[in-house]
Amino acid sequence: MPTSSSPLATPTPIEPAVAALLRVMEDTWNASDMDAMFAVATPDIHWVNVVGMHWQGHAAVKQAHVVFFDLMFRGVPLKLEAVEHVKALPGGLRLLVVRWLLGAYKTPSGEPRPPSQNRMSILAVPGPDGLLISHVANIEVNPHAARHNPV
Amino acid sequence: MPTSSSPLATPTPIEPAVAALLRVMEDTWNASDMDAMFAVATPDIHWVNVVGMHWQGHAAVKQAHVVFFDLMFRGVPLKLEAVEHVKALPGGLRLLVVRWLLGAYKTPSGEPRPPSQNRMSILAVPGPDGLLISHVANIEVNPHAARHNPV
Repeated sequence: MPTSSSPLATPTPIEPAVAALLRVMEDTWNASDMDAMFAVATPDIHWVNVVGMHWQGHAAVKQAHVVFFDLMFRGVPLKLEAVEHVKALPGGLRLLVVRWLLGAYKTPSGEPRPPSQNRMSILAVPGPDGLLISHVANIEVNPHAARHNPV
Repeated sequence: MPTSSSPLATPTPIEPAVAALLRVMEDTWNASDMDAMFAVATPDIHWVNVVGMHWQGHAAVKQAHVVFFDLMFRGVPLKLEAVEHVKALPGGLRLLVVRWLLGAYKTPSGEPRPPSQNRMSILAVPGPDGLLISHVANIEVNPHAARHNPV
């Protein structure tokens, strides 16, 4: 498992279009700017979040984030820790696996959550001005389980 | 959110190559046959499991499953509940979101887990004899969180 704390420490350089998309995702999260965040999403985006909710289409994905930022994520910092995988696909698409560090927050039911790492798989597709998010699957890393990783 | 209990109940027919891949994944899981399961995976497969472990490459992904079947998954039934999304990508690739029902099991640390739903995103790529698994991100559905789904 990579232990780098910065995307700059990953072994291969990150192509500019990938770096630009991830920078927008990080910056717009930290600005709580859902309009700008979903300006880099396709109309047919699907998003599966860390608790397995499956949001389908741009309006639903954006609305879910608007509600969750109002409820719990406004002001919770997000930092890109590593770009673990970039797979080039036909048509200029990219499949990314990246690791984020998310600050502490409270769930909608009031449960406090400590800072956590999320591994996010992103399908990115070319748009007129750069890569756009077509699919996200976001998985919270369970730090207790990690010691049982067999490989 | 689809509530169908069978892939046959989804609104659109599932294309045969997708259905065939999912059938192999289900059947080989239930047979605890890792050789057959990873016969339908690409050499460069990446897999992020429900607790955020990121396995990279065919040997690592298969070995992790061999260990986990020996530890906890042998005899634990897996059933395909729904094909929620099939996105056609350039080059004949498919991005799938499917929902599995996994039977009860015990984690490596001995914690009993009740039956659970997993939402799995799969990037499938054409191989000589059908679709192959290129990427998996598997997310356990948190049933307590579901009532806070804003959309």
